[in-house]
Amino acid sequence: MNRTEDVLQALDAAEAEMRRRYFDFLRMPSVSAQPDHAADCRRTAEWLVGELREIGFEAAVRETAGHPVVVAKHAGPAGIDAPHLLYYGHYDVQPAEPFELWTSPPFEPTVVEGPHGDRVVARGAVDDKGQVMTWLSAMRAWHQVTGGLPVRVTALIEGEEEVGSPSLDAFLRDNAAELSADIAVVSDTNQWDFATPAITTRLRGMVYAQIDLRAASRDLHSGMYGGAARNPLNLLARILGDLHDDDGRIQIPGFYDGVTPVSNAQAAQWAALGFDEARYLGDVGLSVPAGERGLGALERIWARPTCDVNGMWGGYTGEGSKTVIAGEAHAKLSCRLVGQQDPAKIEEGIRQFVRERLPKDCSAEVRIFASAAPVEVPVENRFIAAAQAVLQDEYGVAPAMIGGGGSIPVVESFKRILNTDALLMGFGLDDDQVHSPNEKFDWRCLTRGARSHARLLGKLAG
Amino acid sequence: MNRTEDVLQALDAAEAEMRRRYFDFLRMPSVSAQPDHAADCRRTAEWLVGELREIGFEAAVRETAGHPVVVAKHAGPAGIDAPHLLYYGHYDVQPAEPFELWTSPPFEPTVVEGPHGDRVVARGAVDDKGQVMTWLSAMRAWHQVTGGLPVRVTALIEGEEEVGSPSLDAFLRDNAAELSADIAVVSDTNQWDFATPAITTRLRGMVYAQIDLRAASRDLHSGMYGGAARNPLNLLARILGDLHDDDGRIQIPGFYDGVTPVSNAQAAQWAALGFDEARYLGDVGLSVPAGERGLGALERIWARPTCDVNGMWGGYTGEGSKTVIAGEAHAKLSCRLVGQQDPAKIEEGIRQFVRERLPKDCSAEVRIFASAAPVEVPVENRFIAAAQAVLQDEYGVAPAMIGGGGSIPVVESFKRILNTDALLMGFGLDDDQVHSPNEKFDWRCLTRGARSHARLLGKLAG
Repeated sequence: MNRTEDVLQALDAAEAEMRRRYFDFLRMPSVSAQPDHAADCRRTAEWLVGELREIGFEAAVRETAGHPVVVAKHAGPAGIDAPHLLYYGHYDVQPAEPFELWTSPPFEPTVVEGPHGDRVVARGAVDDKGQVMTWLSAMRAWHQVTGGLPVRVTALIEGEEEVGSPSLDAFLRDNAAELSADIAVVSDTNQWDFATPAITTRLRGMVYAQIDLRAASRDLHSGMYGGAARNPLNLLARILGDLHDDDGRIQIPGFYDGVTPVSNAQAAQWAALGFDEARYLGDVGLSVPAGERGLGALERIWARPTCDVNGMWGGYTGEGSKTVIAGEAHAKLSCRLVGQQDPAKIEEGIRQFVRERLPKDCSAEVRIFASAAPVEVPVENRFIAAAQAVLQDEYGVAPAMIGGGGSIPVVESFKRILNTDALLMGFGLDDDQVHSPNEKFDWRCLTRGARSHARLLGKLAG
Repeated sequence: MNRTEDVLQALDAAEAEMRRRYFDFLRMPSVSAQPDHAADCRRTAEWLVGELREIGFEAAVRETAGHPVVVAKHAGPAGIDAPHLLYYGHYDVQPAEPFELWTSPPFEPTVVEGPHGDRVVARGAVDDKGQVMTWLSAMRAWHQVTGGLPVRVTALIEGEEEVGSPSLDAFLRDNAAELSADIAVVSDTNQWDFATPAITTRLRGMVYAQIDLRAASRDLHSGMYGGAARNPLNLLARILGDLHDDDGRIQIPGFYDGVTPVSNAQAAQWAALGFDEARYLGDVGLSVPAGERGLGALERIWARPTCDVNGMWGGYTGEGSKTVIAGEAHAKLSCRLVGQQDPAKIEEGIRQFVRERLPKDCSAEVRIFASAAPVEVPVENRFIAAAQAVLQDEYGVAPAMIGGGGSIPVVESFKRILNTDALLMGFGLDDDQVHSPNEKFDWRCLTRGARSHARLLGKLAG
């Protein structure tokens, strides 16, 4: 245990250096969605290889059909049967648009003062560059103090997470023997709140679809055609309005296949978290829970599927009035999935739902932008136990065992392709503005995250 | 009758001059919606006063709360009890935006070759400057040949028709004695087709509303809030999707109050028009009639009310996916009205319809952008009979007696305030691109329109 204490001291002493490296990482605009930034993505991968080699890893940029992956290996201590940990992260970031809403340039990390001290504002500050920095910094400190790592580590840092990881499954399949490990460690989730750490044990899956309806071949004057020509906006509203019944149940065919009720033990554990739904809704100006009736908020967010319209547009959207019947109408729709729901069946259910409501001279295109199965992480293993212990040590309070409303598809891929379970230990906060302008990471979250990872490495040492 | 023949010859001989005056009229960008063009509106009104004075009218620019009105009076023949005709038109035009879609500058009239010979492309080419030119030119020819007009004429040309005529009712009330006439003659409608003239005998009314829904105070991440926070896009779709039942009937409370069935005689007359619904829909890429079931297309367009979503927007509308739950959702909605439907009751019905479907922590604002009662014109009078006769003479084919899907609120105001019925004899074609880029008027429609008006003045001479 005194090796860990030495490492923690070294980590604290290296804060300035950690910040410098973190800022170098943030300055590279590794936007995976935008082809203009392909070279920036590669440069970021190469930078990571340099970082990993400095701390004793055998590291390389590995090609995929898309942006490259960084893979690095560290054998850990010689002669000891140490566990093998697969650390996963992603170096790509969301687009920063709209730029005009940023208070500082998105790729020039800027320190501002928040209620918990310094916070760093930049695209990727938390998602996922800041979170990757927590474990890279912990390993650097272990390397500095001991000349190595106390466990065997493989690092896998991809560059396409923000575009749905299209190349990752193939890469995992092609390199399964090399990448399979005792546990995957993923830092891409949040704490419970600033004072309370969390381990995420379930993640909802997702299907994200765009629906494009087409009716008349051009925009029509509603005086000349109203009452005779199909209006695709009325039709779209009718289709989307049918998605839920009066009790909030989703009407897509077969939607609830594989949705399992929460166990009593699980429900009791969540109830013990003392979640304040009134405040959670009140913070965003709401008071009436939406979604299915008769369920608690945590159950609805963590354990129930959803279907939300994320965007909708068509016709005249300017000032004042224009009496047009549009030729097209569009919507973006996402379903969050739980339990054993099958994304492929949900995709087909959405297509069928639209098709059944379509007059024969209208057409609908349904495009799928993301598709990921839900994940539940086994909680009865020594890695979760170790993480609970080190988070308790670091924060002085037991971590909340939580669900996550969002989706991290890679966790499901690790299980399916590598047969490797995951430990989801993340340090973000709910107000980090992930995917939005002015994304930030509290410096204290980053340093406590690094210290937690340093502790975990020590705890798991053979 | 030989006076009329002389006038028609003079009219034909003056085509070059007519075109020159018409182009002067079109070059003035009298866009009533845009404050920057207020001076252009006034200049256009002054130009019209000059035109009217040249042909014997006592004419003046008259002030209103908005853009001025032109009023001109001609006593007609001395000593004869000639009828008093109120000619109505508007000198204002729609905005020309988007400019980039025009093939020539919108305020520089340009002659292009079409299937029926020359056509003039410009904003206002037909709506309503070109139509106003038909009767101004006819009166100029009468003045030139006879030194006067064969009937008593009051001309009323307003400058706010394209913004809903906000000042006109008050102006009519304040000047009712001066403006009341035996008939109002309005040229702001279309022919049946290029070969067949038309008299419009009914116009649908309209209520145009914008609905703004507000839920959360900011955009939310659907992973963190999906299933718990109200999604205003889902809610908007549900509200708009409820507007029609499965048979296409509109569900706004009290919507059908005052909707009367079409008489058998009317239905028989419309059936005789031989309207080709398959072609009408096929021209715009459709094949299945929308709207209420069991009705013919002309009945649905001319004699049945509608409720169309004209625009809808909210959330993420860019490329790819963004898992956002928006804070707001918006729609523009218009109802076309018929029979005795009351626009004020329809407005309240829309508000009630939205309110009844609103969770208590969401708000909805319903703004009304236009509100006009439907109009039916009496057809059993000598003015209609005269118009039928002169159109038959000019075109060699009887005019179609048609309904109009659009709305011309001033016709209802004339009846209500001046107790003056209207004769709607217009010369536009369905492909004139009214309110759109590249608005045009076929030159042959303009000259036949002028000749028809010249004939009408002769026919009604005392």
